[in-house]
Amino acid sequence: MSVLVVGSVAFDTIRTPFGVATEVVGGSANYFSVAASFFTDVRLVAVVGEDFPDQHLEFLRSRGVDLRGLQRVPGKTFRWVGEYGFDFNEAKTLDTQLNVFADFAPKIPEDYRESEVVFLANIDPDLQRDVLRQVRRPALVAADTMNYWIARKPEALRQTLTMVDALIINDAETRQLANEQSLVRAARTIQAWGPRILIIKRGEYGALLCVDDEWFSAPALPLESVQDPTGAGDCFAGGAVGYLTSRMRFDAGHLRQAMIMGSVMASFNVEAFSLDRLRTLTRAEIEARFTAFRRLVHFDDLAERSGDSR
Amino acid sequence: MSVLVVGSVAFDTIRTPFGVATEVVGGSANYFSVAASFFTDVRLVAVVGEDFPDQHLEFLRSRGVDLRGLQRVPGKTFRWVGEYGFDFNEAKTLDTQLNVFADFAPKIPEDYRESEVVFLANIDPDLQRDVLRQVRRPALVAADTMNYWIARKPEALRQTLTMVDALIINDAETRQLANEQSLVRAARTIQAWGPRILIIKRGEYGALLCVDDEWFSAPALPLESVQDPTGAGDCFAGGAVGYLTSRMRFDAGHLRQAMIMGSVMASFNVEAFSLDRLRTLTRAEIEARFTAFRRLVHFDDLAERSGDSR
Repeated sequence: MSVLVVGSVAFDTIRTPFGVATEVVGGSANYFSVAASFFTDVRLVAVVGEDFPDQHLEFLRSRGVDLRGLQRVPGKTFRWVGEYGFDFNEAKTLDTQLNVFADFAPKIPEDYRESEVVFLANIDPDLQRDVLRQVRRPALVAADTMNYWIARKPEALRQTLTMVDALIINDAETRQLANEQSLVRAARTIQAWGPRILIIKRGEYGALLCVDDEWFSAPALPLESVQDPTGAGDCFAGGAVGYLTSRMRFDAGHLRQAMIMGSVMASFNVEAFSLDRLRTLTRAEIEARFTAFRRLVHFDDLAERSGDSR
Repeated sequence: MSVLVVGSVAFDTIRTPFGVATEVVGGSANYFSVAASFFTDVRLVAVVGEDFPDQHLEFLRSRGVDLRGLQRVPGKTFRWVGEYGFDFNEAKTLDTQLNVFADFAPKIPEDYRESEVVFLANIDPDLQRDVLRQVRRPALVAADTMNYWIARKPEALRQTLTMVDALIINDAETRQLANEQSLVRAARTIQAWGPRILIIKRGEYGALLCVDDEWFSAPALPLESVQDPTGAGDCFAGGAVGYLTSRMRFDAGHLRQAMIMGSVMASFNVEAFSLDRLRTLTRAEIEARFTAFRRLVHFDDLAERSGDSR
């Protein structure tokens, strides 16, 4: 089974209170691809400039990521400069240079059109629809978006949502999109526009799943040291959607497991700058951390611990 | 078994985007007592003025709260005026009138000195130690505090912490108290000062427990409508500490259940202004919501849902 991802591959420069990383590889589709590659075949559609290092492309290939959809064009690769204060839940964008990404028109290779699952990373909702017009009946379409598109292209985004099964956004964006403070009511509003599945990311607080009218809360693992939260959301999506693609079951039970697998991948990714932690990650480490998440939320039913009560 | 609580009983005036409540009954010890009364006997030490309504005292008595430690003195009851914006995680204090609370010197009735469990609500850490000097070897001492005391009386607070088993504070206060961004490292620092058990409240995001070096994450229930978050933290403490008092077991397994019982009581309390939701609450509703929390965090082990993986 294969997941097709369309989004950005970029150079990031990141400042945190604990260090600086200059022009390291990043981008939503890049993070997604590496995280998802631990679970399934990944097909990447993105664009880079002539300055993008072969070394990273070789790393992606070594992870089984199919790069036939990665365009390399004259010019410079997309660059983002961001800063985090002590609150790692929100990045402050200091500079964005779209470069070759400014003219990105996703072209889906013929061999990719039968992909069972599609993930539309955070790009222009018009481009997201362009992608969906080029594929044939995927079993699951998942999409990300952001406050920028919610504010600037609400109608285009609404059109895209009619074609999306699972929307993966953060809690502030959920409220902004639905214009509703209550997440429960916001979820109902957004679901009425199309996505049966809503996944709400909450940074260090974990994530919520709403499927039909059933809710699931995924915790975040308390970590001794967070180096760099960049890409956590895309690694979450990669883990979750990659896991679902490996199972090809989209019921609430599998979605709950996928939420945890997304949380597992995000929890690893924030332990180092860029994608560095994922470079050495093993399947055994992933499974051990999945088990750690089970332990983190476990509590006994009331009947299981006896004692008097009124 | 009995829990002794020492703290404030007050009149609150609360403004939210959805309504205003004027001079409704509140106060940390008041919220705590009502929540804990669903699980165990409660002994309340606090002070009110002549203006405090008998009707509310009768309600407390009807819930089995022992009021022999409640002083009624000449003057006006403590008043707090607060406001919430759309972010219900933080109240903005508009006015505080300490009134009779300014001279509060907790005097523990002789009959209360053998209380098995003590909860020190958010009062001056010097008063918290005064209380502990008046009681005889409780099995568990739990305490709350706030940024005001962390900033103004750090040494007094540190002395109090040497006598506390369980500290219940919010995440910003945890970081402030330990002067440490990482909650994992902050917990270790605070535990080294005394409390074996650290409970970190995170508002709409739930709560974390750290006992020795074991972590537990309690979710918050996604609610259709939150009317008034005032007292949620004290209802959480009342549910958690009240439950522990009913069991008189303080191992990690019972603490995990107590975290959920605290979350259950907080989730009910925010559904109405003041203590109104707790007035009609039943044991059956509490147990049903405990079960809803189990469902909210449940996910299967990887082995339980088959499929290929790499």
